[in-house]
Amino acid sequence: MSLIVQKYGGSSVADADRIRNVASRIARGREAGNDMVVVVSAMGDTTDELISLAHQLVERPDEREMDVLLSTGEIVSSTLLAMTLKSMGHNAVSLSGLQAGIHTDTQYSKARITAIEPQRILQELNKGNAVIVAGFQGLNSQMDTTTLGRGGSDTTAVALAIGLAAHVCEIYTDVEGVYSADPRIVPEAVKIDRIGYEEMLELATYGASVMAPRAVELGQAHGMPIMVASSNSDNAGTLICKEGSMELRNKVSGIAHDTNVAKIMVIGVPDKPGIAREIFEPLARANISVDTIVQNAGLDNVTDITFTVARTDVVKALSIVEPVGRGIGATRVTSDETLSKVSIVGTGMQNTPGYAARMFRALADEGINIHLITTSEIRITCIILEDRVKDAVRALHKAFEVEFRQAE
Amino acid sequence: MSLIVQKYGGSSVADADRIRNVASRIARGREAGNDMVVVVSAMGDTTDELISLAHQLVERPDEREMDVLLSTGEIVSSTLLAMTLKSMGHNAVSLSGLQAGIHTDTQYSKARITAIEPQRILQELNKGNAVIVAGFQGLNSQMDTTTLGRGGSDTTAVALAIGLAAHVCEIYTDVEGVYSADPRIVPEAVKIDRIGYEEMLELATYGASVMAPRAVELGQAHGMPIMVASSNSDNAGTLICKEGSMELRNKVSGIAHDTNVAKIMVIGVPDKPGIAREIFEPLARANISVDTIVQNAGLDNVTDITFTVARTDVVKALSIVEPVGRGIGATRVTSDETLSKVSIVGTGMQNTPGYAARMFRALADEGINIHLITTSEIRITCIILEDRVKDAVRALHKAFEVEFRQAE
Repeated sequence: MSLIVQKYGGSSVADADRIRNVASRIARGREAGNDMVVVVSAMGDTTDELISLAHQLVERPDEREMDVLLSTGEIVSSTLLAMTLKSMGHNAVSLSGLQAGIHTDTQYSKARITAIEPQRILQELNKGNAVIVAGFQGLNSQMDTTTLGRGGSDTTAVALAIGLAAHVCEIYTDVEGVYSADPRIVPEAVKIDRIGYEEMLELATYGASVMAPRAVELGQAHGMPIMVASSNSDNAGTLICKEGSMELRNKVSGIAHDTNVAKIMVIGVPDKPGIAREIFEPLARANISVDTIVQNAGLDNVTDITFTVARTDVVKALSIVEPVGRGIGATRVTSDETLSKVSIVGTGMQNTPGYAARMFRALADEGINIHLITTSEIRITCIILEDRVKDAVRALHKAFEVEFRQAE
Repeated sequence: MSLIVQKYGGSSVADADRIRNVASRIARGREAGNDMVVVVSAMGDTTDELISLAHQLVERPDEREMDVLLSTGEIVSSTLLAMTLKSMGHNAVSLSGLQAGIHTDTQYSKARITAIEPQRILQELNKGNAVIVAGFQGLNSQMDTTTLGRGGSDTTAVALAIGLAAHVCEIYTDVEGVYSADPRIVPEAVKIDRIGYEEMLELATYGASVMAPRAVELGQAHGMPIMVASSNSDNAGTLICKEGSMELRNKVSGIAHDTNVAKIMVIGVPDKPGIAREIFEPLARANISVDTIVQNAGLDNVTDITFTVARTDVVKALSIVEPVGRGIGATRVTSDETLSKVSIVGTGMQNTPGYAARMFRALADEGINIHLITTSEIRITCIILEDRVKDAVRALHKAFEVEFRQAE
């Protein structure tokens, strides 16, 4: 008998039929003799509906209240799943983040998990219950509810798998696994059987959107293998784990893209020490992740500073940067929300020259203009106009096709 | 500065405009220098929607899970009200039943409050916050969420008023107070300014539906005055308090009615000791309140036992009584859901003969047949066909009109 930790996303529990399907999967796990701990997201669009309810009342809702509000979505789905399992003859109990012992810091809407105290979960398992945990939420030291932000339920699942010493964390979603590119854009994309944590991180951060990067990071930090698979089939998915055999290394794993990109330019800044700090410190304090940063020193000791943020953060970022810009004597602050990122990712690239050149040529052959370039050891990213992003993904998938074939 | 405990019902927070209205009322209370503790129900039809969500999946949902599910409705409304107050510049914080220290027994769906531990509420008041408490819910000794059943939010409010030693508990609803009869049926019904706990209990139990009887009982047990008023006006409502002056006594306070009535008949039962116990003990264990009980001893040592339950309990009650009936050799068990109760209520009746006769004559003059009669010291109730209940209320209001005039 082993302990299995599973997570089902919002689309997997979006209606009664899908909740029944998930309950059957959990039942099968129990019938095979396993202890089951299952993390669920809120049903379908529940979270968006709760957000819009708040926005009918208040333009910028208080974050503490917002977290309590949003946490109800996962509580609803966890109770529905637990009562469905019970009606099928399986003992089951739902637990809120608080009851499941998910401790976090006090950073509302983006809380980080600080500890797992799984006593209640273990008690319920000992009683023979399947334990259904409301994802995305925890409690802080004031016993107040916090939410974990984007990808919170994935993070809950991986944290519980670690806290409960499970062998693997299973993430069920509406896709069959991680692909060499988004199959909606590249029909010939291939499913990746195994992928290293770092490669997965680069893919996810740059838009593969299969799994939350912070959950992958958490898995990496504790060596917890993560299986991503479909809740609608029994096909093997993609196992995210430590980089293994030699032959996985010399290749490109996949093409990622991300349309949630906005560029902010602070133009005509007097070029003196400390300027970058004055811009980026307040953004960090407001918890806005800044991605690419480019500084173009110009004439007359005047410089332009360009950086990208998630498009969803651009209003908040501008509200911070505009007064800073005035304060440091910038000519103006502008933003551009028509951009996207496209990346090639693979551990093979770090030892093999020529990948960047092949990427730039593939884009040039398609007539796609590159606005900004950033690279990591296992990734090369170009920022291009959003309306060309699908063409770019297809062109790059074709250019590196041979590499995916090797991976099969 | 004093401490005010208020409760707003589901119709008072049913949409954004009404939530803003409630927030303004709370703000006014704060501006007058008061500490505000406010209990809210779930918005409008939320609870019914959550119930139907569960019933899409499971015919008889597990009660523990159901309680957790339903408790989210009040959490949602409490956060929306708190964030609205904050946006108006008033410090406010929402607390769940758990956080507010509402301790209950473990009887899911009908939990009773066992203790109030108001430390967190007091802390938040000391910080200058208006405290918005999710009504209808508490936690049991296993730290699991329970719900208090029908009228739970009224009970939460009165319990908090007692626990916090407030001077009065204010219950805001969609009516202006307690009337001498339902104003939708009797347009000339008059608002009662003051009413005793017991009279209110008889009115509420028998369907005045303005306020939950158990909340009135709780107020009575601790001598907590309860003001029932409209959330849409500043008119004085009805104060429910200890019976006061002499002149309140010699009168009928009001006409109550209740259409949530079902009759169950166990027919042809061998008439021997212990029969009643065999029927009513299992109903009590299942937490079904049995109202009127009539036993008609017949010929040949065979008897019929008739009793009434809430119509909402009739399916559950039949599922218990039918096997018991077979076990004790009853000919058959039948039910009738076409009945209603109509009552006259008033402390004056206990010392003055003739009220029952006046009531029966008024009904007879309207051609209304009486199926069953029950009485208490301050109430006379007739069970009649549901399709005559409005006529009965009007006829009785007219018959006792003079008494209401005296109360004004």
